[in-house]
Amino acid sequence: MSSLDEYSTNRAALIAEDRALRVDHARAATHTTAELQADAIVRRIRKEEEEAIWAKEHDDVPHPFPGMEFLTGKHIILKTKLFKLLSKMPKGALLHAHLDITVNSKSLLELALQYPTIHICAPTSINAATISSVSPEFKPHPPGLSSSSGALSLSVTDYIPNTWIPLQTARENFAPSLGGKDGFDTWILGKMSITPSEAYITHNNNIRIWDKFREAINFARPLVYYFPLFEKYVKTFLLETVADGVSYIEARINFSPKYMVGEDGQENVPHREWLITINKVAQDLKQSLKERGCEDDLIGIRIIYTIIRDCSLSEMEWYLEDCLALKKEFPHLIAGKCTVVESTTPFLTSLDAGFDLVGDENILKPLIDYIEPLLGFQKRQKELGLDVPFIFHGGETCGDGTKADVNLYDAILLGTKRIGHGFSLVKHPKLMQICREKGIAIEVCPISNEILRLTASMTMHPLPILLNNGVPVALSSDDPTVFQNMGLSFDFFQVLAASEVTSLLTLGHLARDSITYSTLEDIQKAYALAAWEKRWTTYVQAIVALDGAF
Amino acid sequence: MSSLDEYSTNRAALIAEDRALRVDHARAATHTTAELQADAIVRRIRKEEEEAIWAKEHDDVPHPFPGMEFLTGKHIILKTKLFKLLSKMPKGALLHAHLDITVNSKSLLELALQYPTIHICAPTSINAATISSVSPEFKPHPPGLSSSSGALSLSVTDYIPNTWIPLQTARENFAPSLGGKDGFDTWILGKMSITPSEAYITHNNNIRIWDKFREAINFARPLVYYFPLFEKYVKTFLLETVADGVSYIEARINFSPKYMVGEDGQENVPHREWLITINKVAQDLKQSLKERGCEDDLIGIRIIYTIIRDCSLSEMEWYLEDCLALKKEFPHLIAGKCTVVESTTPFLTSLDAGFDLVGDENILKPLIDYIEPLLGFQKRQKELGLDVPFIFHGGETCGDGTKADVNLYDAILLGTKRIGHGFSLVKHPKLMQICREKGIAIEVCPISNEILRLTASMTMHPLPILLNNGVPVALSSDDPTVFQNMGLSFDFFQVLAASEVTSLLTLGHLARDSITYSTLEDIQKAYALAAWEKRWTTYVQAIVALDGAF
Repeated sequence: MSSLDEYSTNRAALIAEDRALRVDHARAATHTTAELQADAIVRRIRKEEEEAIWAKEHDDVPHPFPGMEFLTGKHIILKTKLFKLLSKMPKGALLHAHLDITVNSKSLLELALQYPTIHICAPTSINAATISSVSPEFKPHPPGLSSSSGALSLSVTDYIPNTWIPLQTARENFAPSLGGKDGFDTWILGKMSITPSEAYITHNNNIRIWDKFREAINFARPLVYYFPLFEKYVKTFLLETVADGVSYIEARINFSPKYMVGEDGQENVPHREWLITINKVAQDLKQSLKERGCEDDLIGIRIIYTIIRDCSLSEMEWYLEDCLALKKEFPHLIAGKCTVVESTTPFLTSLDAGFDLVGDENILKPLIDYIEPLLGFQKRQKELGLDVPFIFHGGETCGDGTKADVNLYDAILLGTKRIGHGFSLVKHPKLMQICREKGIAIEVCPISNEILRLTASMTMHPLPILLNNGVPVALSSDDPTVFQNMGLSFDFFQVLAASEVTSLLTLGHLARDSITYSTLEDIQKAYALAAWEKRWTTYVQAIVALDGAF
Repeated sequence: MSSLDEYSTNRAALIAEDRALRVDHARAATHTTAELQADAIVRRIRKEEEEAIWAKEHDDVPHPFPGMEFLTGKHIILKTKLFKLLSKMPKGALLHAHLDITVNSKSLLELALQYPTIHICAPTSINAATISSVSPEFKPHPPGLSSSSGALSLSVTDYIPNTWIPLQTARENFAPSLGGKDGFDTWILGKMSITPSEAYITHNNNIRIWDKFREAINFARPLVYYFPLFEKYVKTFLLETVADGVSYIEARINFSPKYMVGEDGQENVPHREWLITINKVAQDLKQSLKERGCEDDLIGIRIIYTIIRDCSLSEMEWYLEDCLALKKEFPHLIAGKCTVVESTTPFLTSLDAGFDLVGDENILKPLIDYIEPLLGFQKRQKELGLDVPFIFHGGETCGDGTKADVNLYDAILLGTKRIGHGFSLVKHPKLMQICREKGIAIEVCPISNEILRLTASMTMHPLPILLNNGVPVALSSDDPTVFQNMGLSFDFFQVLAASEVTSLLTLGHLARDSITYSTLEDIQKAYALAAWEKRWTTYVQAIVALDGAF
């Protein structure tokens, strides 16, 4: 053997050894011919578009690249074949999404406009000088209670600060100089989401962007937490999500507010009613999908109970008991140790799939601050024979050894089933090993991480490190209302575009893993996986038949 | 034991286990009392300044943070106690710096102004409209040959494009409306370096910023490669570097140009003359340090032969032979298998410490393209009894599986002694293991990586992953002329500021490692390490005595 041949042999062996731990390594040996063909087609399209689309200057995007800042690149992404192709892919499960921030901002505004009871106010009259800085507010009023002042527009000079105006009226009468109704919509949508200039210029770091992020969430909350609207909101969320190829959901709900505002305009709708509504909407949708012969398009939805990580210890005790009480109240709906509702159609809505704390880990309280109630919660579950696993956020930070980073140790020690974000996990060799060995999946939210400025673009994201270390990953969208990444197609796109190792078949593996690492019971999981495999096979065949041109 | 106590015990054990691989873990058991006291003082100062300086808004920096973009944050860094303290630290070795881009831009301009033979031209007259976009050029002329046209100023309206003007004259006559001489200096310095707005706005990605980077290097090159100036240039570099606490240097020189311009204005000074000059300057400086009783402030300098990774295979063969010829010509000066010049003062200038290819790995040729001549080079060395290790750049990229990323496999297979940058190494578990086990150190250049937009700030840099995986690291400055990070203090500062795990003692460990992983022979290394330890002990004691207030 010549030295060159010998070198080539050694080289191939080293590359193979380096990739041997990779999450999709074992599966590579079992790929079907159709899968390999589809993979080659997708690689070709990616390469073609890298040169024809991403290497070119665009009018409003001077130097684009694959995996670039999402808010700037989104309209380019929408033009690609690769995106069109991925939008048809069966995505498996969405395991990390905050239900109260998950509907397209446009859909949410449309919903809100259906309610004459929903009002808006602002701390000053809206004009060209104030429009970008002013923070308006929503509030549902009791029916029949009109604007106390009879005010009709936020944009007249004599608008009295903080006067409530029905949303519809405020929109109708928005100054033509500000764009009238369209200008109103643009303004409201901008307040509900993060704009490119906010993310990439004015708030271009992780600390600052959270200010805008919180503002956007708080602004939209009175709409989402208006109980008459909530049912339609959940339906919209499910429809939009299912349309993107997601077939199972574990959604986090922020239960920190103890009540939603009811039809009477009062804060009086308790947590259990929220859950009953979600269940009803999901069952209705499931029924209608069944009638259309595609019931497996939605396997089910389960809820992860979350609260903001800034409450006192005694409040924490209250929430933990509330969580257990809800779990107990709806045993017939609950997965885990219980049986499935209908064994022939393993659809279920579970009202307590898990428990989590949310909010900026860099600033709010770390898990260790709540260690006593959290350990007590586990004890209480044993006493009550319940099973509500922790599914903690951890390491959503650029910090090294900071409290947000250190949360990872506590999440793992507390037996977390998965880790939300786990952005800083890659710094911890032992914790990566534990996650790999114990099967603790990381809910990776590529676009969320980028917009919240943990990474400047997808090409800098640590995802390849997790994949190459064999840590199971489920790609997730986190907060589509704010990030404008509805469904999972955008996140899948960014991951595929930013790597030459990751392929369509890797994405398929991640979709499978999203079901594997869900909280579904084995029998349900087997059903969900089989349903997904069926869709995947059809999808792969379609790629080959259409040569990728959907 | 209560469940809480048990939890605390398990927690401490997990954190310890996670950090057990860390590069400075073993040493932690042997820290002296003074080291521990100094460490506590430095942690306290870092914490105080995080709150008092970095958490505050500054006039021109709206939201600073520790480890922020260097070009924007530099003037804040300069105000900190932490920087002052680090500037006094003995840094060990500088193992990754391109000698032709290593002197402060201001020093370089001052040197150039000493030579009436150095001329400048521009493709158009310089005025307020053209000044920022125009690319001027330098050229040394033969002595006595004045500006052919007698032109006196680049900024007059009748300046004939591309007319050469003596640099001094052009500076004297620069339009007062453009700031006169000061305006000229600012303009020239801006062309030699990367400005904050270029790095963080107009060229804010890795592909684009390389355009400006190359431009800056090419602009300065005719000055550095003017042989009459070169001697003073090397002296300035050594003085600036030694002043920052660096005691040993392995500098890369770009040998792609086969000749420097000599005193007669002709390109006729071959590589061997460059080396003789470097040796002379280093020996002179060593002598003068000896006379002042601080000869160990400079242990030595060795040269790594580099060429741009875009030449043809036959050109590559020429350079490799040239490299071996130089190594052979100066055996008495060369480390490796030869003896040290003077055994009592183990100072040496070695003219071929290693071989490397440089230039943008994303665009230019990967190592595998040169595999035959590189394998041949190793064979030739055996025949000739020479030892010129490869010290390759590799993985200076955000790419995943791209040719720049794949260079890491070839660098390691070719037996690289260290890896330049290795930015993408953290994606490769097997390669990290090999580097740890074989002692292949990574020359990490924090500020370079950030300005060249591989990472948006130091807080996103993968350095903690290398450290926590036990991969040896030597912090380096890369190209101070362009990045304005003269010495190693700025890079050390960024690393210390951006982590709560990394401490002064970690930096001490990295400084030690920079000597340990140098190409010095064992006896020389032992001397260099002992000299460093002595300075370190003094430094640590000074921190304690002064309570960190240097």
